[in-house]
Amino acid sequence: MKAIVYHGPKDFRVETVPDAGLRDDADVLVRVTRTAICGSDLHLWHGMPVAETGFAVGHEVVGVVEAAGRSVRNLRKGDRVLVACTTGCGSCVACRDSLASACLVTAANGAQNVFGFSRALPGGQAEALRVPFADANCFRIPDGVSDESALFLTDVLPTGYLGAELAEVTPGDVVVVLGCGPVGAFAARAAQLRGAARVLAVDLDAGRRARAAARGAEAIDPAAEDVGARVLAATNGRGADAVIEAVGRPELIQQALLLARPGGRIAVIGLCMAPVEIQPALLFLRNLSLRSGLVSPQRSVAKLLAAVESGRLDPTEIITHRLPLSEGVRGYELFAHHEDGALKVVLTP
Amino acid sequence: MKAIVYHGPKDFRVETVPDAGLRDDADVLVRVTRTAICGSDLHLWHGMPVAETGFAVGHEVVGVVEAAGRSVRNLRKGDRVLVACTTGCGSCVACRDSLASACLVTAANGAQNVFGFSRALPGGQAEALRVPFADANCFRIPDGVSDESALFLTDVLPTGYLGAELAEVTPGDVVVVLGCGPVGAFAARAAQLRGAARVLAVDLDAGRRARAAARGAEAIDPAAEDVGARVLAATNGRGADAVIEAVGRPELIQQALLLARPGGRIAVIGLCMAPVEIQPALLFLRNLSLRSGLVSPQRSVAKLLAAVESGRLDPTEIITHRLPLSEGVRGYELFAHHEDGALKVVLTP
Amino acid sequence: MKAIVYHGPKDFRVETVPDAGLRDDADVLVRVTRTAICGSDLHLWHGMPVAETGFAVGHEVVGVVEAAGRSVRNLRKGDRVLVACTTGCGSCVACRDSLASACLVTAANGAQNVFGFSRALPGGQAEALRVPFADANCFRIPDGVSDESALFLTDVLPTGYLGAELAEVTPGDVVVVLGCGPVGAFAARAAQLRGAARVLAVDLDAGRRARAAARGAEAIDPAAEDVGARVLAATNGRGADAVIEAVGRPELIQQALLLARPGGRIAVIGLCMAPVEIQPALLFLRNLSLRSGLVSPQRSVAKLLAAVESGRLDPTEIITHRLPLSEGVRGYELFAHHEDGALKVVLTP
Amino acid sequence: MKAIVYHGPKDFRVETVPDAGLRDDADVLVRVTRTAICGSDLHLWHGMPVAETGFAVGHEVVGVVEAAGRSVRNLRKGDRVLVACTTGCGSCVACRDSLASACLVTAANGAQNVFGFSRALPGGQAEALRVPFADANCFRIPDGVSDESALFLTDVLPTGYLGAELAEVTPGDVVVVLGCGPVGAFAARAAQLRGAARVLAVDLDAGRRARAAARGAEAIDPAAEDVGARVLAATNGRGADAVIEAVGRPELIQQALLLARPGGRIAVIGLCMAPVEIQPALLFLRNLSLRSGLVSPQRSVAKLLAAVESGRLDPTEIITHRLPLSEGVRGYELFAHHEDGALKVVLTP
Repeated sequence: MKAIVYHGPKDFRVETVPDAGLRDDADVLVRVTRTAICGSDLHLWHGMPVAETGFAVGHEVVGVVEAAGRSVRNLRKGDRVLVACTTGCGSCVACRDSLASACLVTAANGAQNVFGFSRALPGGQAEALRVPFADANCFRIPDGVSDESALFLTDVLPTGYLGAELAEVTPGDVVVVLGCGPVGAFAARAAQLRGAARVLAVDLDAGRRARAAARGAEAIDPAAEDVGARVLAATNGRGADAVIEAVGRPELIQQALLLARPGGRIAVIGLCMAPVEIQPALLFLRNLSLRSGLVSPQRSVAKLLAAVESGRLDPTEIITHRLPLSEGVRGYELFAHHEDGALKVVLTP
Repeated sequence: MKAIVYHGPKDFRVETVPDAGLRDDADVLVRVTRTAICGSDLHLWHGMPVAETGFAVGHEVVGVVEAAGRSVRNLRKGDRVLVACTTGCGSCVACRDSLASACLVTAANGAQNVFGFSRALPGGQAEALRVPFADANCFRIPDGVSDESALFLTDVLPTGYLGAELAEVTPGDVVVVLGCGPVGAFAARAAQLRGAARVLAVDLDAGRRARAAARGAEAIDPAAEDVGARVLAATNGRGADAVIEAVGRPELIQQALLLARPGGRIAVIGLCMAPVEIQPALLFLRNLSLRSGLVSPQRSVAKLLAAVESGRLDPTEIITHRLPLSEGVRGYELFAHHEDGALKVVLTP
Repeated sequence: MKAIVYHGPKDFRVETVPDAGLRDDADVLVRVTRTAICGSDLHLWHGMPVAETGFAVGHEVVGVVEAAGRSVRNLRKGDRVLVACTTGCGSCVACRDSLASACLVTAANGAQNVFGFSRALPGGQAEALRVPFADANCFRIPDGVSDESALFLTDVLPTGYLGAELAEVTPGDVVVVLGCGPVGAFAARAAQLRGAARVLAVDLDAGRRARAAARGAEAIDPAAEDVGARVLAATNGRGADAVIEAVGRPELIQQALLLARPGGRIAVIGLCMAPVEIQPALLFLRNLSLRSGLVSPQRSVAKLLAAVESGRLDPTEIITHRLPLSEGVRGYELFAHHEDGALKVVLTP
Repeated sequence: MKAIVYHGPKDFRVETVPDAGLRDDADVLVRVTRTAICGSDLHLWHGMPVAETGFAVGHEVVGVVEAAGRSVRNLRKGDRVLVACTTGCGSCVACRDSLASACLVTAANGAQNVFGFSRALPGGQAEALRVPFADANCFRIPDGVSDESALFLTDVLPTGYLGAELAEVTPGDVVVVLGCGPVGAFAARAAQLRGAARVLAVDLDAGRRARAAARGAEAIDPAAEDVGARVLAATNGRGADAVIEAVGRPELIQQALLLARPGGRIAVIGLCMAPVEIQPALLFLRNLSLRSGLVSPQRSVAKLLAAVESGRLDPTEIITHRLPLSEGVRGYELFAHHEDGALKVVLTP
């Protein structure tokens, strides 16, 4: 089958690889109908170290069940499904706690349990994908929801929602979102869904700011304005109720702590590999909460799918490019350079 | 000053009464700019027994502070304020717990602590209103918010919000609201604000259903349709996540319990004086939660005001009639009979 | 194998039945080491209608895994396990929400998913028990925890905990528990574990009151004292923060509503088949919460097991009788009549 | 009157100062019966910079109301009260949110709203104390509770409880407390009150470890043992559910982050003036929550007082020394040097 294969930083190739197939009774094989390029795929593109090469990349996948192992209960051939990017066993103490990312079975001993970062769990920018523990990791797509509408429930929409959840966004809140990429866009949407009175969205990219404004946020250009002053002006001088860092940069994490009001909550949903110096006295004297996390879509898929099905959320709003899988490498280049306004690239095998 | 005075069921009169004034250091005197007729005023109109006559009615009031007692800290002459309908002392254990309706000071010994039901605490369908414990019960209206936009924060919007809160509405929920009067209308809005995927709104009155549909709910005529079947169809046969009874009738409370899914939450925010027979085995076997409550607006004013200020909520949407205070009795008649589509009548002194 | 078999009300017989065995890849077969008689088994004994006869009864079971189906992941032959009384599939929306009692797979179409109430899912007062969806329903017992210490985690301890959870017991609360049977005993323990300042335990049976007092509760004889007066005296006249009804009688449910303070929470964890008349105005004016539920032990086993393992809880404290399985019918009689102080009867196959 | 007056680091003097008295209608004057030396007083002792000298120190105070301003509602002459160390106005948005430490009235414009750090709000290691906004900041002591039993509800017990609350300790948790001083001691007690299965308490001081062990914690000497290894051994290799840093040192904050399990919660209740370098990727990949805060005792006094009144908590257990106020400077020396096992020094004026 065709797949986008990792050979090293900026060296991704569309190649023919052995067909995916069932390996375990709990697996399903999914014929991929849509897949997308995620910001964390870009980490690989830009050189995040991994232990090996030669695996298919990608972890945002919807498709149709083509075959199901004999112990799979809730799925059958022909089901349209979305696949959670983080694969849990479904029954360990972490999975019961909706923390598939820390599954005691699939993430034990340093194993990676996100698709597309290893040969052990190849990714879904491919014609087909093997999904382990399928009952725990596949979710049927309701009839009225298109493949594209379901696609981002695999990762980036639940990630945005996680940001709003970790920041405990509640009705009436003034929320700052740092970064208007796909994750920031959905963090802002999730904040609105949870009742935020105002969302202030910060990004250096004018195109992304314009899209944020069109989604109902108040866009701020940090190169042109003092973000702190804007936040204070918006909050009678108190600071934001919640701040969501959706980029993963040390200086933005530091800024996030400064933007929150006493008792405010800061969520970091951007992956930041560098250390950050923080002032514990600031957290102490202002009673701050700093939370971070890798998404386990299993936690929020049901509620987000309901909101998509009813039309409250339209996740396709972030799609800027649709390409055939064969042109996937071009998709990476567009997204990596924000070229042609690229915010989200969807691939069709 | 002029006021609408209670003389008995259906015998409300616009009369001249002694001017309201300060009685205590913690009081303020509010010059009323807008006041509205509430469904609970109708209880009086229709004959709810009270111990005395001759008091001004009404508990939905906004206005301007005209005088403040010497111990008032947070308010001064000229402040535009909204007045919580339930008056708490602000510092007892109930008030600290945002339960002004059970204030140990103002609601002790059978005293009534809602405006407009007794001579001890006359109401605000009048030119002026004395507000006890003003720091705890008055909230300044931000500059960008009109008097009319703030008016329903005194009672009926927080009551609707309480319904959504007691029913623990969370993002993605399918919510049923029984009744599309003012309380039901705001319960539905509150459910949407908290992220409901769908709101199913039930009412016999076609005009109220049409308004509910215009607010984004799916309106159901219980005389024409089987509500239970509609709810099952909307929820894959499981039942509603949350049901809010916003009328106060025994048969609707019973129906609410039947509409909820296993693990569902039912809130009753309509006052029902009759007993209700329930099946505890239904609650047990379906793990239901049944909650009810009288509003303490203090609990939610800040968040709701933020949502009004930012434009996420427009409480004026329920206003159907605006009359001078002098025609207030006509306002009662309109509202009592749903005449001329009356949903909410606002009075200007 | 030997089992206690249901032939009708008060007609339970120790008989030889066909050996239990695996039927499905997700099953395990558990060799029973200890089993206990539960209050809900007594419902059968006293005549609760069921559709058939001839099945083994019992749903409180610990034992050793003797065989595991090929799709079982987390268990292997020789594991000591406790078995949740309510069997969920582990991956449907209800199970993900820790509501195995409403599992969309095992409890669909009127099926009963508690062991020991049907031929489809025979019980564990037997030498062996087949457990479906074993990964979701069996929990390994840590080395330091005896079989008897783990036994009540299958049902009655989680049921008591559910009561404290539904009543939202928090540190400092004054809690009333109506009923000092096994469920009430553990509801009181759970309330203490969650930080209750005081537990007032009510029962007509002097022996049960004495045991409650020995567990640190303040025991009340409702035949000798006015329970309401005691509760008011204990709470400065306000009422209890939380009330847990652990019997399942209409008059006690009504009493529970009267004992709670404004804003108080009432949990009903006794199964009551009769209707109850309630005053919705009482719930409304006092802002009460009434919740009920059938236990899904999966929800709390991990935390309770940790508390047992560390010694904070000793569930064996409720055991009054230990009998061989062959004398199980005598166990029913003892328990049904509170004979010889019977509170909990444990059987060994 | 006599008071302990700040003249500079290590220069505290028992002196005669002008009598405290009412200044505002909302004040009360409290005749001090017991006062204690807090770890944050030691910050002053050791040189924490403040803007002025010549003020009475101390913020842990119980006593008897000697005079009350005319707007005080809930207190009267003769009431025995405990005084929250952090003084809020009681009616601003922060105080309504139980965050007196960020009161918009008392903590505005850089003002300090804890007693005993400025001339504006002198402390209570004195014969008398003026308490502003007394209704919000004084709590009556129930008859059965001694002054000494109530004393630590003014600060250090609510601070410990805040740690357990910020770390979201729930029943069954394994909790690590770093530091066995007064704050750590009460954090451990609070963790137990909230149902912790195990508390691992870490301190270099053998005497403090012995006291921790006597309170039911598992004491660890970090100089002799690998704390991380102990925590992993206690948690099947997963890490602690909750970690409470009760000292305020950068290296302990870093360690706290390493000790938590995936999804774990870390609370920092020690004040740390130095910066700390953290790895955001650790928080991200392990889904950690880091919270900190300055206590607002108003938040938890009611529940803790109930637990003290019922005997579940005995706060006097931390008292090691009782001295007359006149020997207060000696008390500071004892506490500063852990001399003679000093854990908590109580002073009587």
